[in-house]
Amino acid sequence: MASQMPNQAHKFAFGLWTVGNRGGDPFGEPVRPPLDPCESVRRLGALGTYGVSFHDDDLIPPGTSPAERDRIVADFRKALDDAGMVVTMATTNLFGDPVFRDGAFTSNDPAVRRYAIAKVMRNLDLAAELGAGIYVFWGGREGVESLAAKDGRLALDRFREALDFLCGYVIDHGYPMRFALEPKPNEPRGDLFLPTVGHALAFIERLEHPEMVGVNPEMAHETMAGLSFTHAVAQALWAGKLFHIDLNGQKIGRFDQDLRFGSVDLVESFHLVRLLTESGYDGPLHFDAHAYRVEDPEGVWDFAAGCMRTYRLLADKARRFAEDKEIQAALRDAGSADLARPTVGAYSAEAADRLRGEPFDLESMRARGYRNERLDQLVTELLLGAR
Amino acid sequence: MASQMPNQAHKFAFGLWTVGNRGGDPFGEPVRPPLDPCESVRRLGALGTYGVSFHDDDLIPPGTSPAERDRIVADFRKALDDAGMVVTMATTNLFGDPVFRDGAFTSNDPAVRRYAIAKVMRNLDLAAELGAGIYVFWGGREGVESLAAKDGRLALDRFREALDFLCGYVIDHGYPMRFALEPKPNEPRGDLFLPTVGHALAFIERLEHPEMVGVNPEMAHETMAGLSFTHAVAQALWAGKLFHIDLNGQKIGRFDQDLRFGSVDLVESFHLVRLLTESGYDGPLHFDAHAYRVEDPEGVWDFAAGCMRTYRLLADKARRFAEDKEIQAALRDAGSADLARPTVGAYSAEAADRLRGEPFDLESMRARGYRNERLDQLVTELLLGAR
Amino acid sequence: MASQMPNQAHKFAFGLWTVGNRGGDPFGEPVRPPLDPCESVRRLGALGTYGVSFHDDDLIPPGTSPAERDRIVADFRKALDDAGMVVTMATTNLFGDPVFRDGAFTSNDPAVRRYAIAKVMRNLDLAAELGAGIYVFWGGREGVESLAAKDGRLALDRFREALDFLCGYVIDHGYPMRFALEPKPNEPRGDLFLPTVGHALAFIERLEHPEMVGVNPEMAHETMAGLSFTHAVAQALWAGKLFHIDLNGQKIGRFDQDLRFGSVDLVESFHLVRLLTESGYDGPLHFDAHAYRVEDPEGVWDFAAGCMRTYRLLADKARRFAEDKEIQAALRDAGSADLARPTVGAYSAEAADRLRGEPFDLESMRARGYRNERLDQLVTELLLGAR
Amino acid sequence: MASQMPNQAHKFAFGLWTVGNRGGDPFGEPVRPPLDPCESVRRLGALGTYGVSFHDDDLIPPGTSPAERDRIVADFRKALDDAGMVVTMATTNLFGDPVFRDGAFTSNDPAVRRYAIAKVMRNLDLAAELGAGIYVFWGGREGVESLAAKDGRLALDRFREALDFLCGYVIDHGYPMRFALEPKPNEPRGDLFLPTVGHALAFIERLEHPEMVGVNPEMAHETMAGLSFTHAVAQALWAGKLFHIDLNGQKIGRFDQDLRFGSVDLVESFHLVRLLTESGYDGPLHFDAHAYRVEDPEGVWDFAAGCMRTYRLLADKARRFAEDKEIQAALRDAGSADLARPTVGAYSAEAADRLRGEPFDLESMRARGYRNERLDQLVTELLLGAR
Repeated sequence: MASQMPNQAHKFAFGLWTVGNRGGDPFGEPVRPPLDPCESVRRLGALGTYGVSFHDDDLIPPGTSPAERDRIVADFRKALDDAGMVVTMATTNLFGDPVFRDGAFTSNDPAVRRYAIAKVMRNLDLAAELGAGIYVFWGGREGVESLAAKDGRLALDRFREALDFLCGYVIDHGYPMRFALEPKPNEPRGDLFLPTVGHALAFIERLEHPEMVGVNPEMAHETMAGLSFTHAVAQALWAGKLFHIDLNGQKIGRFDQDLRFGSVDLVESFHLVRLLTESGYDGPLHFDAHAYRVEDPEGVWDFAAGCMRTYRLLADKARRFAEDKEIQAALRDAGSADLARPTVGAYSAEAADRLRGEPFDLESMRARGYRNERLDQLVTELLLGAR
Repeated sequence: MASQMPNQAHKFAFGLWTVGNRGGDPFGEPVRPPLDPCESVRRLGALGTYGVSFHDDDLIPPGTSPAERDRIVADFRKALDDAGMVVTMATTNLFGDPVFRDGAFTSNDPAVRRYAIAKVMRNLDLAAELGAGIYVFWGGREGVESLAAKDGRLALDRFREALDFLCGYVIDHGYPMRFALEPKPNEPRGDLFLPTVGHALAFIERLEHPEMVGVNPEMAHETMAGLSFTHAVAQALWAGKLFHIDLNGQKIGRFDQDLRFGSVDLVESFHLVRLLTESGYDGPLHFDAHAYRVEDPEGVWDFAAGCMRTYRLLADKARRFAEDKEIQAALRDAGSADLARPTVGAYSAEAADRLRGEPFDLESMRARGYRNERLDQLVTELLLGAR
Repeated sequence: MASQMPNQAHKFAFGLWTVGNRGGDPFGEPVRPPLDPCESVRRLGALGTYGVSFHDDDLIPPGTSPAERDRIVADFRKALDDAGMVVTMATTNLFGDPVFRDGAFTSNDPAVRRYAIAKVMRNLDLAAELGAGIYVFWGGREGVESLAAKDGRLALDRFREALDFLCGYVIDHGYPMRFALEPKPNEPRGDLFLPTVGHALAFIERLEHPEMVGVNPEMAHETMAGLSFTHAVAQALWAGKLFHIDLNGQKIGRFDQDLRFGSVDLVESFHLVRLLTESGYDGPLHFDAHAYRVEDPEGVWDFAAGCMRTYRLLADKARRFAEDKEIQAALRDAGSADLARPTVGAYSAEAADRLRGEPFDLESMRARGYRNERLDQLVTELLLGAR
Repeated sequence: MASQMPNQAHKFAFGLWTVGNRGGDPFGEPVRPPLDPCESVRRLGALGTYGVSFHDDDLIPPGTSPAERDRIVADFRKALDDAGMVVTMATTNLFGDPVFRDGAFTSNDPAVRRYAIAKVMRNLDLAAELGAGIYVFWGGREGVESLAAKDGRLALDRFREALDFLCGYVIDHGYPMRFALEPKPNEPRGDLFLPTVGHALAFIERLEHPEMVGVNPEMAHETMAGLSFTHAVAQALWAGKLFHIDLNGQKIGRFDQDLRFGSVDLVESFHLVRLLTESGYDGPLHFDAHAYRVEDPEGVWDFAAGCMRTYRLLADKARRFAEDKEIQAALRDAGSADLARPTVGAYSAEAADRLRGEPFDLESMRARGYRNERLDQLVTELLLGAR
């Protein structure tokens, strides 16, 4: 199955900036030439990709004239149509320009904050024009190096103010669009506000329009902090807030690597794919990653094809996980299905009394093994193709 | 000022298990003899401590007869009264007994889950009897090593069910008590549910009684994941959810160290103290830490006195931070106060139009420096006693 | 192939303390009963294990009488013979007893240091009696929490003095035995001396008998610090110092987990197995890990069998890596074999002149891609059983 | 004392690239204009700096004509003379040019390896001309993302070959110059060869001219891996290999931050300064750091002055540490000086017999406390200016 190409039904998507990444890093110059967005669409389409996403500046370079902008948009739309692809998501570059060096929505400079909101408004129009149903906010400069410089509570006030205003804008214009916040613990700032999926989910509850804002968890970002990405996605799903997802690979505790999906942690990647499958998530499967800097332009497409192929291989294994009799028996030994059973139900004085009087066979409860080693080893063997 | 002893007004508190820690670890046996809770109270009282906290099993060893339990409670209350101290918080040991090896509220075994809830109910009665206004939940076993064994969404269902039930119990009994969830990323389980302050804050919003549940952020736990503890506390304050706090020290990315407050990161500790002071937080300042294993029983009191003394030294510096003219000038250069100014206010079509038409002097905005190096260096010098 | 049991030729070994681990941790009591060393041998033998290793205290509990010691040793040897197994390694418990709380060879107390050396001497005799060819030193207490308490240079002096003395002892007694140092970055101490394979390799060069001392790299320990274990083992092999190896699994940046081999990082585990295979390493493949705490006694053997089975599956894939034509072509594109070609040879003024005058086609050198994405993706697919 | 400016005797040095850092990062453009090296020298000189260091490309942009090169060098030398400053160290940029994308000395492409060596040779001549006594090698591209692409043993062979050749070159030319290897665990590559001070020290022992090669430990680099920088420097001193040092600040487990010295970890920074002072290290105190990206050009000099001022404040505290009677008493309680006493001396059969027969009072040895909490708290208070 996975030997054939992916197709539209797989809903794979890439950002223009991912395949367009030129390989520059803090210690070295770009190694690959710029890539035209339309060419990206053509190549991605040929690989069976469903959608693309973009930052405003990826598509419309700053300083573009209105006429030129219209030409770019028309060309881009034609390329999408030719490739049978769609725009799945759009977002704003609020981090590259020196103007945002102290933050965008949370810059200490009110003019910068207003400029940031205006920049988003402009791109919301384009996103709507191109049919993006999801608009992502990654606050790459919303943070500090010096804890003296910003009161975190005020920063959250300003962050909320900006999102409330922009929700108002989208509602006012009737755009069929939802927002997704993308958390990250650090880099490029020393510490970022809303560092994890949890912090973003909590923040959303204090917004004026919480129902139209969800999260865009990124595998690399949670992993940088050593957190289980599968658990983060599970909590987002549990809260009804998984509006989008960024797939890639990352080692814990180091710089943002944005590696090929599946290249680092096959176990976590597998359980993630299994969770997405079981949950019925049907949004785009968006890869926010880029090719190694050692690659030439052709290597970029090896990278892109690899992301999708590994996802499909893992999805196939997720299907087999559900069908494998030995694995299902091990799940029973682990009591996994029993976690779905209510423990006590809703509180009542009677229920409390009953519970207080309930006898427990502590000795046998203490002796019970959950056989997770066996279950986990079966997963290892499933992953290794040995079952 | 800090040269004198702390007193009740400082609201310092310690857990019985902190000064009572016997120095056992995964590789070595205990090195200190057991410490009687009443003796802990006496010694802490003599150091100027305001309150103590306890796990059920710290005070009432499992298997204690009802008569013996009553005697222990009476002695403990007398020791508190003699020392002029109070119980600030209570919590449940849902992690030590092998019965909880697969979790307490989220064990795959429903009987274990019921037993866990019953164990909490019993200790809620004692906590109320002893006047604890805060009841903490640390889910030390609520997690997994094998992601195959538990669906994270079901685990959150069960976690919520338990807390809803226990909120019901407290309300039904009219206990003047609030709950505080204590997050932790990992250890003793491979990955814990509700790994950070953010995840806990988000989870609370889906409870039946969110208003009576807040968080108990622990410095070591956020730090293990490399997150700014000051930011975590700021978000908890922002959400109105800082119900309690656990102070200690920890290096990023390693085992849970629970070190003396201020012993690791003076900069983060200072900004935390400054935030607590500025926010008007008036709950207990609770140290959840323990003496190094190299200490003998007397070293424990060096440890306890050190935690409080460093807090007071940093609080004094927080006061000076607010008074230091050069620091205040640097804050102005950094634009810190401007973060309190609304950016655009509430959305309206007019406001959006105005913003869209606003001219921005991008060149000067790009050139602006925020002089955080100078501000931060002044903090360094304030900390080092050089100003 | 991997579907059959391992046998002696695979040279798999386990420590008595690994299968004997009772599941205690900093937050919880043991969950499994003690396991008799002879029973461990029987069960391991039945799984096809080649050897066992032990700490002195694992086999001979402290306080054992000489007669009882002889009986234990005789029983143990008989169990080994019956199982057709050997002792591959021995080591000393210099960390559990409170006496070592400040270190063993580097305790600030000279009496403790002498006691530690005497304890090793005693076990060297037993190790020799039982035929252990490798003796491991893990300095679990050789470190600090307070950098004020020890001068690191003096600690290394004392560490060296102890090892020089013990080398002298082994030489004097004619024991056919080599030493292997096992580095670890932290835990149970805040920071350990000789924190990585590199530090240990460097230290060995300053010993009196460097030729008889090598390293025992442990996968979990290097991984805790986020270092590539494969690279660490490569440098040990390069230096001729890979005398032993500890295999297991670990997440970066957290407490010492000692998980089942292959359970965390299949990619790093695969390349490690490939390196060990290609290098011709023929020492024991020693698992220093333990079953999850959720396991009952039977789960321990699931764990042990899983370690060996995954190793064999990966070894089989290493063989296929070498035979796969597409992978070999990708290696050529990556220029991997060209790394074996000398660059310039030995220095000479002529060689330097030649090099200075050499023309370089920088444009084409800058444009060259190394196609590592494709190579790496082929490895992913090999691991997933898709090729 | 620290209130006055530093002077030449303090031996502070900065790299041209540090004050010249323009604030670009992986997510954002440069924010500060280029800084002329002569201007850097003037400004640093005015702050009381002793020396500067440079990469070849910092001083002589690639593509510079010979005549232009000579003019740049003459101007630079004049600026140094005018400022009363010296060149303390030079190094090679073997990481910025796309040609080095797969490595320099360890690129899989032999032509790249030769080009790298030739580039170093050229700059060695300039370094000698400008009087640099230390030449640093940081192998920023010597590593991998894909473990399949390079055999680590071959990479070390090539690394050694390059250094042996370049040692030969320096010897042949009679340059009074020593080499210092600068380790780093990762970034910009996924995993770097020679990831820590330990690995570099071990590697040096296998070179042809180990006596002329030492290490240049960088605080940020060891800290990224969570290792104690003070311990790393202690081991380098112990091995006689501390040839140079890079001072800065960094949080554990994140991207390379290169922060102002003392801005992150005052405790580790203090013990480092104390160690450098006590050891008599008299090489340059070199800051390899840069100003926050939020700074404008003037903020750079706040940053530079701050690095030096904090160093001097900590050096003053190191002096007081040695004079403080209470601290000295606490060191006695900790037994710190006893670590200098030999444990057993050299091996002899008699010494072994004596040791075997030595009685140990284990009960009192087990009960001994080392009072490190008190010692450490005194250090905290010394740092906070409270003693």
